[in-house]
Amino acid sequence: MLVGESTAWTDTHCPVARTLDIVGDKWSLLIVRDAFDGARRFTQFQRNLGIAKNILTDRLRMLVENGILESVPNAKGTRAEYELTEQGCDLFTVVVGLRQWGERHAFGAGESHSILTDSAGRQIPRLRVMSAAGVDVEGFDAHVVR
Amino acid sequence: MLVGESTAWTDTHCPVARTLDIVGDKWSLLIVRDAFDGARRFTQFQRNLGIAKNILTDRLRMLVENGILESVPNAKGTRAEYELTEQGCDLFTVVVGLRQWGERHAFGAGESHSILTDSAGRQIPRLRVMSAAGVDVEGFDAHVVR
Repeated sequence: MLVGESTAWTDTHCPVARTLDIVGDKWSLLIVRDAFDGARRFTQFQRNLGIAKNILTDRLRMLVENGILESVPNAKGTRAEYELTEQGCDLFTVVVGLRQWGERHAFGAGESHSILTDSAGRQIPRLRVMSAAGVDVEGFDAHVVR
Repeated sequence: MLVGESTAWTDTHCPVARTLDIVGDKWSLLIVRDAFDGARRFTQFQRNLGIAKNILTDRLRMLVENGILESVPNAKGTRAEYELTEQGCDLFTVVVGLRQWGERHAFGAGESHSILTDSAGRQIPRLRVMSAAGVDVEGFDAHVVR
């Protein structure tokens, strides 16, 4: 499924802008974060995020419409739960990028934060933007070709 | 400089949430995108983004307050220009992650989009989340340790 087909794009040829039109608000990305962390039920998202029910309802609906989450019945068939789709799971690099920036710049020396580990319990190393030749690329060394 | 010191955090121990409290809106991230692409002047950002002046003024002020952009005088000393700080530049992985997700999921078969290349003109490969041992990590294989 192509996401956002009915969206009036902010900047139609820019993939950054299209992604932000689809998930570029704090709550949508925090819902995706929580889904990676195992949340499935409306009440779980609500408790984790502490947001108003109507905002959560709206964001979940948009994430389902845009193919990021899928609404599935729970085991009893009594309520909907939410699962990341394949393209929702593909937001993992975005969530990790946001996390790692925060770890480096948004905490003081005395402040603790959660860390992200692999299945062996070791912290996930820093994401690196690499060239096709395997060399680290800084922001101003890269060029947008239109 | 520690960013966001005066912010009432949405989720105080989570680096993802702190980053989103600081830059988690579409316009802020598109301003950062444009700064990577060489924009420096208010009028450049305004033309690229097509947003209302008061919203742009507000976002630029917030990005400067949070240490993402620095306001510097232009060559004539007549107006302010905006430069990414070191921690602003460190948002590159986030912008690349957003771009690559959009490239994969937000364009139809017949739609063209810009691409990001290295200095040799070759497309930047896909960002990969790797374990400390150098193995690809999927979202559900990673764990948040609080």
